[in-house]
Formats: sequence, C-alpha cells, structure tokens
Amino acid sequence: MQLESLIQAARGKIPCDLLLTGARIINVFNGRIFSGSIAVHGGAIAALDARPARKVVDLEGRWVAPGFIDAHVHLESAMTVPVQFARAVLPRGTTTVVADPHEIANVLGTAGIDYILAASDGLPLQCFFALSSCVPATGLETAGARLGPAELAPYWSHPRIAALAEMMDFPGVLAADGEVLAKIAAAESRGKPVDGHAPGLGGPGLAAYVAAGIGSDHECTRADEAREKLAAGMRIMIREGTGAKNLDDLLPIVSDVNWHRIMWCTDDRHPHDLITEGHIDAMVRRAVAAGQDPVRAIQMATLTAAEYFGLRRCGALAPGRRADLVVIDDLDTIRIDSVWAGGRQVSAGNEMILADGQTAGPAAPTVMRLDPAALGLAVPAAGEQIRVIELVPGQILTGNGRARACIRAGLATADPARDLLKLIVVDRYSGRGRTGIGFVRGFGMDRGALASSVAHDSHNIIAVGGDDADLKAAVAGVVEMGGGLTAAAGGRIRAKLPLPVAGLMSLEPVDAVRRGLDRLNTVYRELGGRLSDPFMTLSFLALPVIPELKLTDQGLVDVNRFTFVPLFV
Amino acid sequence: MQLESLIQAARGKIPCDLLLTGARIINVFNGRIFSGSIAVHGGAIAALDARPARKVVDLEGRWVAPGFIDAHVHLESAMTVPVQFARAVLPRGTTTVVADPHEIANVLGTAGIDYILAASDGLPLQCFFALSSCVPATGLETAGARLGPAELAPYWSHPRIAALAEMMDFPGVLAADGEVLAKIAAAESRGKPVDGHAPGLGGPGLAAYVAAGIGSDHECTRADEAREKLAAGMRIMIREGTGAKNLDDLLPIVSDVNWHRIMWCTDDRHPHDLITEGHIDAMVRRAVAAGQDPVRAIQMATLTAAEYFGLRRCGALAPGRRADLVVIDDLDTIRIDSVWAGGRQVSAGNEMILADGQTAGPAAPTVMRLDPAALGLAVPAAGEQIRVIELVPGQILTGNGRARACIRAGLATADPARDLLKLIVVDRYSGRGRTGIGFVRGFGMDRGALASSVAHDSHNIIAVGGDDADLKAAVAGVVEMGGGLTAAAGGRIRAKLPLPVAGLMSLEPVDAVRRGLDRLNTVYRELGGRLSDPFMTLSFLALPVIPELKLTDQGLVDVNRFTFVPLFV
Repeated sequence: MQLESLIQAARGKIPCDLLLTGARIINVFNGRIFSGSIAVHGGAIAALDARPARKVVDLEGRWVAPGFIDAHVHLESAMTVPVQFARAVLPRGTTTVVADPHEIANVLGTAGIDYILAASDGLPLQCFFALSSCVPATGLETAGARLGPAELAPYWSHPRIAALAEMMDFPGVLAADGEVLAKIAAAESRGKPVDGHAPGLGGPGLAAYVAAGIGSDHECTRADEAREKLAAGMRIMIREGTGAKNLDDLLPIVSDVNWHRIMWCTDDRHPHDLITEGHIDAMVRRAVAAGQDPVRAIQMATLTAAEYFGLRRCGALAPGRRADLVVIDDLDTIRIDSVWAGGRQVSAGNEMILADGQTAGPAAPTVMRLDPAALGLAVPAAGEQIRVIELVPGQILTGNGRARACIRAGLATADPARDLLKLIVVDRYSGRGRTGIGFVRGFGMDRGALASSVAHDSHNIIAVGGDDADLKAAVAGVVEMGGGLTAAAGGRIRAKLPLPVAGLMSLEPVDAVRRGLDRLNTVYRELGGRLSDPFMTLSFLALPVIPELKLTDQGLVDVNRFTFVPLFV
Repeated sequence: MQLESLIQAARGKIPCDLLLTGARIINVFNGRIFSGSIAVHGGAIAALDARPARKVVDLEGRWVAPGFIDAHVHLESAMTVPVQFARAVLPRGTTTVVADPHEIANVLGTAGIDYILAASDGLPLQCFFALSSCVPATGLETAGARLGPAELAPYWSHPRIAALAEMMDFPGVLAADGEVLAKIAAAESRGKPVDGHAPGLGGPGLAAYVAAGIGSDHECTRADEAREKLAAGMRIMIREGTGAKNLDDLLPIVSDVNWHRIMWCTDDRHPHDLITEGHIDAMVRRAVAAGQDPVRAIQMATLTAAEYFGLRRCGALAPGRRADLVVIDDLDTIRIDSVWAGGRQVSAGNEMILADGQTAGPAAPTVMRLDPAALGLAVPAAGEQIRVIELVPGQILTGNGRARACIRAGLATADPARDLLKLIVVDRYSGRGRTGIGFVRGFGMDRGALASSVAHDSHNIIAVGGDDADLKAAVAGVVEMGGGLTAAAGGRIRAKLPLPVAGLMSLEPVDAVRRGLDRLNTVYRELGGRLSDPFMTLSFLALPVIPELKLTDQGLVDVNRFTFVPLFV
C-alpha cells in the first residue's frame, strides 16, 4: 500500500482508481448500513464517500460487507495448494485466512512452513499463518519433523505470521513444560496471540491453560463450555468444518456484550463442502437463517477476527483498510454477487474472473523414503484373540475391540467375511520402512485396498485392505505418485489422486480434487464399502491422541493409557 | 510473572499466595457480576475460584473490578515524578497508564524518554508509554530536542512502549510528510497502534488521517464528531482532564455496539484535580452518575484500553492477568475500599499503605542553559500601537489584540494600570538566551512577576510581570532551582515551587506540589491577580499551534498565519 498516494486520494487531490457507487455499506464499527460510495485506490479504501475516480462501477443498491476472515483453518484439508484454495474461497467472500500449516509442518518441518509462505505470497487471498505449536503431535510415531522454540524463532518476524497456532498439547501446558511455555512466551513477547485447542477443558485445568496465556479456543462443542471459556477471557472461534460442526450448538452464546469476542472458523473443510456449501459465507448464511442479525453475523466474520489477530488493515470498510469487498444481492440469504480483493474484482457470481496467471507456487520437497517392494506385512500368529480398531460411525474416535484371529498357514490375516481388514501404517520418513500392523472393523470392503499419505498428524502412509497383495499395490501407487490416495484391487491400482505437495496437496483446482475423490469412493463402493468418506476415516486412524485404539508405524496404541499394546491379547 | 508456578497454583497443586473470598467479581468479558473468590499467585490471578492459599482475606461482599487504565496521559501534568504520580492515582484504582512523555521529550529528547522509562520501572503502577510523535511541535521556537524516526527507532523493542503517541501533526499527515509516515510505519510494523489527535477533523481530512493508519482520537468535543470518527474505525478516548472536559458531551455516544471501542483518559490532570476529584475513578463515577451502567463504565476503564494497546496481561479479572484489583464499597458511587496492584495491597481508603521505599528514581539531566543576569528585556519604542495577547477566560486560545504602547524613556513598558503586562519567553536550551518579548492583557497583576519553566511544548522559560526587575528576579529564581515556578515582587522571590526534573516535575508528593501551587497562587492574588490558575494560563502562552497570538523565544507568532509578526503594528 502506497500511503502517500492513498492519503492524496482520500483527500480528493488525485483521482482514485475506482469508485463504487450505489452501495449499501455495512459499517462493522457502529453496526449500521448506509447508502453511499466507496473510493478505492492502490488496493485500499481511500474514503467511504464520492471522490474523483478513473473508473466508476454502480453497485445498484447492493449491500457491501468487508471481506470475510477464516480465523482458523488448515489449508491442507482442502487437499490442494494455496492458489487453488484461494480460487475456491474468494468467490465465497473469504479474502483473509489465518491458517495453521500443521499438516505440512508435520511432514516437512520448517521446509513446509517455508513452502506454504512462498506458495501463498501475493495471492489475492491474504494468507496469514499461525505457527504450528505441536509438531510432532506425539512421540509414539515416526515423524517428519520436530519444531521446537528454536525452529520457530526465525518466523516470528515474518509479516504474515499472526499467532502461535492451536496449542493442542494442553497436558504440556498444564505440566508447565519448558518448551511449550517458551513457545508461548515467544508469541507473547511479539504481541501475537496464542490460539488454544482445549476440547471440554474447564475448571482448574482451564484456569491453568488460560493463565499460561492462551487467548482463544475453537474446540467448544457445548454452549456452557463456550460461556465458561469466554468468562475466563478467551475468544471463541465458532467452527463449522467438515468433521466438526459446532455452529448450531454455539450460536446461542452470542450476545450484545460478547459478540466482539466471537469469530467464525472452518478448521478443516474438505473439497466437497467447499464446493457445495461454501466457506465462511456458509456460516454467515446459516447464522442468519438461525435468526442472527446479518450485520452482527458479518461483524463476527470480519472485525472480530481482524482485531484479535491485530490485522489493522482489514476486517472493515474504512479508510486505509484493504479494499476487500463482498457485494451481496440479498442480506437474508447472503447471496454473493461479486467479490473484490485488494481493490480488484476477483469473482462474479460463483466464478473467479481473476486471470489464471497465478502459478501453483514453488515446488515442495517430496518425502517418500521407503521401498514398497520391501514391505513385510506378514503377522505370525501369537495367540487366538487380537485387538481390533472398531470404527464408530460419524466419529473419529474408535473402539478398542477384540476378535478371534483369522489364522492361515501360521499367519494372522484379514477376514473380509467378518469385516476384519488389515490396517498398516508405514513410516515414510526414516527410510527404514517401519510398519505397524493391526486390524480394523467397519470399512466393509469385500476385497481390495485403500492407501493414503494423508494420515494425521505425522502423515505416514496408511492403508487398509483385504489382502497383502492389494495393500502393497495400493502403497506402491502412493509412493509412485510421491504422495496421494489410491484404491487397488486384483493387485493393481483402480483409482488414484496424486497429492504431490508433501503427500497432502494436489496442484489441481478443488473441483478436480473432488472429482478424484469421487472416483476413489466409487471404486471403494464397488469393493463393497459403505462408509461415506472412507479416506477421511482412514486419515484419522493413525492419530494416537484420539481414543481408544489407534495404529502408528510403531504399533498399536491404547490411547487411554497412552502406551503401545500388542496385537494379540 | 513465573508462569510455571502460576499454572501450578491455578491447578491447586501448590498453595496460592493469597485468596480473596467474599468478592462480587465484575467480569468484563460477559458483563456479569458473580460472587466468589480470587486466587492470586506471584502477582497474577491464578483462578477465579477457591484454591489452597497461604493467606485469606475476606472482602465481605464488596465488588471487585479490574484495575483502571488511563489510555492517554501526560504524567508531567501532575508536576511530579512517576513514583509520586503512582502514589496519587493507585488509591484511586488506576493501576495502569499509557503515558506520552511529550513534555520531557521536548526538553530532553531521548534522554527524557530514558529518564521516564527508568523512573517508572518497577512501580506498582504499570507505566506503559506511547512514543512522542511530534517533538518539537513547531519550528517557530528554540526546542530542547528533535525526535525523528531514527531517534525513536531503538525504543520500539522496549516492552513498555505500547504505541506511537498522539499524532498532533495532522497537517503533516495530510501532506504525507515522509518523516511522519515513517514514524507511523514503524509503529505499524511492530503491531503497535498509532494514537491520534485531531480536534474537529472530519470529511476528507479525517479519511486521509485514518487512511494513514491512525487508530484513536481523544480530542473529540462533540458527539457527532466522535460518531464520525468511530464510524471511520477510530477508537475514541473520552477525556476528562483539568483543562479539557469532554465526558458529559461524549457519554451519549456509548452504545451496545461500540462500547468496546471507547475508553477513558485524562490527558492532563493537575495536582488539585487529582487530589480533590481523583483520576479514572472520577470518570467512572461521573459516568455512573449520568446513568451509565457501572459495569459498562468499568469495562471502558479496563478491558477496552487493554485490548486496544494489546496489553493481554491486564484489563480484566481472569487467570493469568496481573492481579490489579479495585475493591469497591458501593457500585453507584464507586467508593473505593482498597486497591491491589500486582497482587499487593497498595491502598486502604484513600491512603497508600505501600512502603515508601520506592525512590524518586534516577536523576534527570538539568537543562537550564542561560544567564538571567544577562537578559535584555528593554523594548525600544518603534511605534505607538502594539500587538497584545488577549487572554480568553477558561480557554487556552487567545485573542490577537491591539493597544497603545506605554512609552517611557523611549522604551515600551508594562502598564499594570491598564492590565498590560510584559510577557517574555527565554530560550533555555541554546545558551544564547534568545528572548521573545510581548505584552499580555488579562493577568490583572498590579505589580510583581511570575515565571515558569513549564511552557508548552518546548518548555522554555516564560514569565509575565509589571516591571523588568521583578521579571528578572522571577526568571533568576527559576534558573537557580534548575527549573520550577516562582512569584517575585519588589525584586525578590516571594514564593517558589522547585521542579528540578527537566524543569517540569517535582520530587515531592502531589499533595506537596499542590500546596506549593497554592502558595504561589496566594502571592499572585496578593499582587492583584484574579485568574484561578495563572501558571496553567501562562504555560500555554508559548504554544504557537493554539490561535490566535502567541509568544516564543523567537518572537510573536500569528498562529492563524503561522508566521512571526512584529510587536509594533
């Protein structure tokens, strides 16, 4: 932003780049709507009033809101690179995100953060980042990286680092772990907020967590939980993701007194939802449909997040702010006519009109250090009863079940007839190909295998299948693509989706990714499966912080006891 | 703050230092009052709940508010050093200030900022500072210092620098002056707010001023002016100082939607008012008396300022925040029972109970480079009509009057019979003793002289009197003290108040300063004067940015034309 010329334009001393007339301007500071003009110069708002301008656009009485802000999102969940994410959400009105590169940081460490900063540089979507605070998530798996306070230190001075990201390690906070507190102190000394992640935490634990300096939470699932956290001084991010949907439960907490401490976020929103429902606009729409005042719903989508993160140049329609404008046809349904980002029109209707010149950004290093041909998947029988990971429909927690082992030629094998499939997690970082093997019930496939390099949080390769040949083929397919998703049957790949960026992200548009997922899901259903989103389900089975039984490359983890357990009981 | 032990105390794993029971706790986040306990450890709040504690104090149902914050104050206006200011305002509930060291910076430059940082270090009153943005105020006088972006640069990393102070040079902003914009950019790049000072500014000028990045204003005098500034995105600081009182006029702007963008400040509050009315407590009290909800008045005295300045560890009663507590007997009259700062009780009733061990802090360099004996005060007659500074009762602006000169022996002299007194401003910085001489009507003294080293904004020595001998005696008295106020008559000093710190501040308590002022005012009245506060009036007569006619050491300034004019018409 060139302040000199912006000041001149604000004073009417030089012509503005653009004057939008006939606007019903939503003022998030006083909650009012007034009819007028918006003068834009050098990508910023010069004045909310008529000024001499080189170009005039008549908005014909449409409402104009500030660009929406997603206060907490993992771009990786859209399974594509930042420029494609931007193309998906800009027409939805989102012009700024505060993203936590937790997934790519787990795979690539600081190289992942470097990649995401570079790949989001100069996009019409403003991408701020919160520094991932918990890499790796646990010590129970082979991880791609470890980010301590020293590794994070150089990033604090980056102009797009806005916060310390969700502090998932609340046991570490409560134990006053030195590294955890050092990360918090680093953020605090820079005046940056520290985001929380504390599902269900209350009472003395919450007091300690807040005392440590944690300023927000996006994991509330109940209104009383959110009210307790607000009263303790936390900002609340109401989340509506693909997996976790909290808007309906939390909307009742919003009041005259606290709305300016509440904001919207999506956390994880998968391609299908981005395309069919939208992004922050979907939350605003839903809130309005539930009776929330549209202006207030928009205030929570704009000003409150900007204030919390200290983003003084966005979040409102006011002089000096970035000209991020959502032009709305109808305030009750939040039907978006067009979106302007940094003073340029980026969409009309649901279509991007921005030139496609934007590249996918720099290449990310590939991490796929394993030889699929060398995988050893045989499980010598060592008993009759085995532990089984039991899927729970619609949830990422799993049961810790038991089953009679299917023993053939002295080996425990899958038994699709009993919906007992083999699950493997293969270390893709060390080159040693450490492989954890277990069994899972609930995928429902008669045969074949699925494999994925998206496996929270360390993103080793995870695969599930009815026989070892298909498992190997599926894993080999993932490795061959340098990361991605596969479905195999009869010893060959039947469908695949390449995710060459860290094994997490495609270079294709969100819509192409969705079609790729659809093809994979079709094959899955042909193999007899009935889950609605088997790859999402699969991606959480290696996350050893979600109860009760999970599998890492190092073995089965009884999450409640936070320890490894043998397969055979 | 020791986070480790605070976390342990919050969890109840170790005993807290203190438990305050029987409190009616004012929660500024949700606006509610609830009965409970406050656990304090290591100077911070550990929990709003009972915890094991080494000491228990029963508050017997009294209300507890967070410590008050003055969002914009010049400590120098209290005419004493920070420790004495702290002793005056802590019993009034103020536990944090954001001060602009504008006066001492004008006298001593960076040495003045260094002094005030050192002199406020470790006080129970948290003193944050906004870096003075406009030193010197003008080029029409001999100044003590010049603070450009380079001089300010080293201070941005100081943990108690919270903002860039009031940008009074709004013509410089509107002209996109390079140094002005560089100062703003420096603050912005550090994530620090930029305070404004734009009396009456609206329309295109306001758009330009806000576009430059200025985030607050404390100079509104009318509700519609404040509403326009709020709508443009500025925070409003409602001011109630000794000179400027805006609370009654601005209180009507406060609403459900905007209260969290409005805060209180005193700007300049003189010893008398501090003692008789109080500080921020007086504003809260007055707002409540005017019908404002007490909780909201307290929210604006605490949370809103803390949020604006990013002071995450104060401004609320919540875990992890500094244990700054105002214990209130009666919420309607804001009668203060006791105050706790950083977990220690600092007052009971209106009395400080804190040990007096706190020293006055470091010595400030003296700047008094002139020889009073060498002053030349003779004004050779060069006409019959002279320009006269006309006092306007109750205001700091002055008229640009005319009078027949009193010519004696070829020299223009004072003529007390016509209330025509000689006014001089003597440069105390360069050693050259440059002296501006003019005449003023309105002091009403029959004889004698007053002199002061407090003369906004450059703080040269200003004196007014009926004859040259008394003027010289009064100035010599100021010089001899290394700064201060004097009243002389008959060629000798009749009363004096030493202000040895930069010629602006005493080392004595506020109450002693007030008694010193009272003695001076008594002498003034004995000399025939009738102004209620002659030294305050005098202190603004050298400020060449307030219309219409002012005097600097370089001569008479026609402020409307911003140029020097001759004494004789």
